[in-house]
Amino acid sequence: MIRRGRPRDAAADLAILQAGMELFLEVGLEGASMEQIAKRAGVGKPTIYRRWSTKEELIAAAMETLIADEVGGLTAEAIATRSPYELVEAVIDTAADATTTREYRALVARVYGSAVTHPELMATYWRRYILPRRRLATALLLRAREMGTVDADADLDVAIDMMVGAVTYRVLQPEPPEADEMRRYLRAVYRQIGLLP
Amino acid sequence: MIRRGRPRDAAADLAILQAGMELFLEVGLEGASMEQIAKRAGVGKPTIYRRWSTKEELIAAAMETLIADEVGGLTAEAIATRSPYELVEAVIDTAADATTTREYRALVARVYGSAVTHPELMATYWRRYILPRRRLATALLLRAREMGTVDADADLDVAIDMMVGAVTYRVLQPEPPEADEMRRYLRAVYRQIGLLP
Repeated sequence: MIRRGRPRDAAADLAILQAGMELFLEVGLEGASMEQIAKRAGVGKPTIYRRWSTKEELIAAAMETLIADEVGGLTAEAIATRSPYELVEAVIDTAADATTTREYRALVARVYGSAVTHPELMATYWRRYILPRRRLATALLLRAREMGTVDADADLDVAIDMMVGAVTYRVLQPEPPEADEMRRYLRAVYRQIGLLP
Repeated sequence: MIRRGRPRDAAADLAILQAGMELFLEVGLEGASMEQIAKRAGVGKPTIYRRWSTKEELIAAAMETLIADEVGGLTAEAIATRSPYELVEAVIDTAADATTTREYRALVARVYGSAVTHPELMATYWRRYILPRRRLATALLLRAREMGTVDADADLDVAIDMMVGAVTYRVLQPEPPEADEMRRYLRAVYRQIGLLP
């Protein structure tokens, strides 16, 4: 194969990854083609194939690059020094806003939607986005368990799945909530686990 | 358009719906075409278009027809007369088996995956499969609340989302559980809500 097209550069890479992520959200992995991605990014197909040999690889790379690994202000230090109730109270508004955008719903839908047929995408999302959050959530639950608001025999991994699972399930249901309703919903979820009074 | 092809009959309809459901699970809504569905069902495209004008309608119809609306032996009568602990204990093995098949995982992935772009599919799944189960789960939680094992102020819809959300999230994660692990997982979930001691 003759390697043609523009010189490889970071701007083109980013345009390709953004186009790939957009198409993944809009039409899913099976609906997106390398041709569409190239067209939307304004590059030739060879430019893409020089970097990624399949759309699966390209979308996984887009996740690595484009999905934030920051965790909304919650830090290990804050967890060690402030009360779980106080910390959860402080993140509720941000969490309610973040989980009720159309982009968040679309990303959850597509990542879940490809989990069985393309587990490598879920694995990337897991490593890049989920795991850092789970580590902090575990630390928070351990503190709450020390303080007696979370049951001593609670399985913390299951508790995290129940919180994340409820929220991601809720946003995919018919009539997804607005931010105000999500705030009430999150309070009920955290209360059930023992992270709010 | 000239209406040709086989005479419309129930067997052809069923073959079309089954082919549609298979392709939905394998390649998703965006990956499936009416042409592929026709080919797999062994009918001409006009036979399909005579009944369904879009693949969205066809897949929704496949869900209506092919997804069971039975609820695994749990009845309103049993809920009224037996203890929640006993009933939950009795369904755990069945639930662990049912939620760890590849078919279940594939269906959850695809229904969730199409929820934002094709909410009518989730709506059909919701009405056909989810709602009958939620009604029973609510009755069970009300009984458990009467008996004091579920918190008096628990939000029951949120509690159901936490149970279903955890399980469906877990089966889409990397390294999905086998039935034995799922049994332990379900116990932890039910215990957290107050449906097992």
